[in-house]
Amino acid sequence: MLEDKAPNKTSLSELGEFGLIRHLTETFKIGQKSTVKGVGDDAAILDHKGQKTLVTTDLLVEGIHFNLAYMPLKHLGYKAVMANLSDIYAMNGTATQITVSIAVSNRFTLEALEELYAGIQLACETYKVDLVGGDTSSSQTGLLLSITAIGTAKEEELAYRSGAKENDLLVVTGDLGAAYLGLQVLERERQVFEVNPNAQPDLEAYTYLVERQLKPEARKDIAPLLRELKVKPTSMIDISDGLSSEVIHLCKSSDLGCNVYEDKLPLDPQVISTSEEFQMDSTVVALNGGEDYELLFTVAQTDFEKIKGNPNFSIIGHMTPKNDGIHLVTRAHQKMELTAQGWDALLKKQ
Amino acid sequence: MLEDKAPNKTSLSELGEFGLIRHLTETFKIGQKSTVKGVGDDAAILDHKGQKTLVTTDLLVEGIHFNLAYMPLKHLGYKAVMANLSDIYAMNGTATQITVSIAVSNRFTLEALEELYAGIQLACETYKVDLVGGDTSSSQTGLLLSITAIGTAKEEELAYRSGAKENDLLVVTGDLGAAYLGLQVLERERQVFEVNPNAQPDLEAYTYLVERQLKPEARKDIAPLLRELKVKPTSMIDISDGLSSEVIHLCKSSDLGCNVYEDKLPLDPQVISTSEEFQMDSTVVALNGGEDYELLFTVAQTDFEKIKGNPNFSIIGHMTPKNDGIHLVTRAHQKMELTAQGWDALLKKQ
Repeated sequence: MLEDKAPNKTSLSELGEFGLIRHLTETFKIGQKSTVKGVGDDAAILDHKGQKTLVTTDLLVEGIHFNLAYMPLKHLGYKAVMANLSDIYAMNGTATQITVSIAVSNRFTLEALEELYAGIQLACETYKVDLVGGDTSSSQTGLLLSITAIGTAKEEELAYRSGAKENDLLVVTGDLGAAYLGLQVLERERQVFEVNPNAQPDLEAYTYLVERQLKPEARKDIAPLLRELKVKPTSMIDISDGLSSEVIHLCKSSDLGCNVYEDKLPLDPQVISTSEEFQMDSTVVALNGGEDYELLFTVAQTDFEKIKGNPNFSIIGHMTPKNDGIHLVTRAHQKMELTAQGWDALLKKQ
Repeated sequence: MLEDKAPNKTSLSELGEFGLIRHLTETFKIGQKSTVKGVGDDAAILDHKGQKTLVTTDLLVEGIHFNLAYMPLKHLGYKAVMANLSDIYAMNGTATQITVSIAVSNRFTLEALEELYAGIQLACETYKVDLVGGDTSSSQTGLLLSITAIGTAKEEELAYRSGAKENDLLVVTGDLGAAYLGLQVLERERQVFEVNPNAQPDLEAYTYLVERQLKPEARKDIAPLLRELKVKPTSMIDISDGLSSEVIHLCKSSDLGCNVYEDKLPLDPQVISTSEEFQMDSTVVALNGGEDYELLFTVAQTDFEKIKGNPNFSIIGHMTPKNDGIHLVTRAHQKMELTAQGWDALLKKQ
């Protein structure tokens, strides 16, 4: 899991800018019919044949969004693509292309960038998206990644944040909080390693958490699954900053309130046991953890039968009139206002 | 022209990430019919109605691509958009949308970013493109801009780098080398200012050069002009790294050679006089200067009558078989191999 410290190192200046782009992208293959022309001209050419085009972009900065002390470069590349594809899936769309730009300082070798691009390529192959452009530059400090993802959707399938209706059911895919706890585990191991470099990390009890942090998967499967179930989500958003924050976005965009039920939050057993170990409240972890890359969406109550019991979905609440506010209903049946605290709140509790 | 040193300063942390994006983009208006949804959801939604979609992206890093000592932030924003739109125009397409991501260190105030976005907004309004997304982040040092431009073209209008044919005429828009000399003038003034902070810069003899450096315009007008003239370019590329470099790209992509005639290179009188003043060869400046954001394209010989005499175009050479090589024919009728030296070569000559 730890970064490969390969002995052979090639300095980037040996290649030059054009050589670097070519070298890093020459093994990427084009697979999407909609990619008319990828890397190699002034612009890529796409043909979405009458469908809507979706565009989203993310910037990831070393020291702000990731720490290479516990994030291997290959995983970073994979995860950066996931974060972007997740935004396309959150429109109920299909991701088709990405562009990747990087700025790197001279402490990075060619081999390090090859690792990064190996992760990007694995993500492209697994998720069937084409790399169609990008840019490379030096930077004065650290690594910076800027990814733009492009996708398609039919007009009638698009799910906006603003489409939820009163009484709609609030549904979340997968489970929550694991990626955040994975980061806590890795951070603890790093501190142990600093004190005793001979310590062997034992991560066996945390495999799911660490995988959710280092190799998250975006929910490419949800749009086709909903089509199959004949469910049209009325609104949708992806969970990158934590459930609370995204619930509030959805409510504000749709001009509604909602009730989220604490006992309905989907938690993996490792999240429950590790929250206890870290003396954290697992509900707080699930609400504010972030980086889950699951989807949060609303459906009409009439779709209840199609959704209930499906292992991919948890119905965690329902939409209410705006004036009722945005609440968490606790196991003790208390109503607490939901606030977007994000990671800061978690760190203060520690 | 110099940066506005406003006395009121707001620290970015007062706004938070979401507040910052909203604040910087709330005055941008959507004007393109193809923009179904801009900023505000997981992804933007575009509808290019059967046309091809073009995508290009550029990364601009402080200290590498620009120096804020002589590049005011508003101009930087404008120029960064120009560099991207130029790539869309170089496909013979129409630019329709952009996304803008920025990473900034805490030495930038809100007012500084407002200046940057004022330049981006002016570019959007002047060139009729919509800002439809982006991201903001902190950075540990300096400013970084990542822009993705999106455009459209009808299939039959697309101009690839690879489409040139033997005997085609090689045509360049506008004139060459002025942006590079503008940078030299600004750099000289900066050095004078460092020695004597009371020195008043006298840039009157260099207004065209400085404007080409600080406020370049991308050639949005060329695609419609060529349509009007009923000329279909067989290949096209934009001139960002210098004429030599782009001629070589075009030749290699099209598997051809070419002859470029020194006496046909379009030079502004200020380029000629300032080259002399700086003891530089104006031909070298025109060939390697870069940042001209003009278009280089090829047309069939049968289009000669439609192109000749048009003040927007200079016919600077013609395409030859690959084995004839890529040459500059000097005023003294000598053939010299054309090499892509870029700015490095110029700096060495100084």
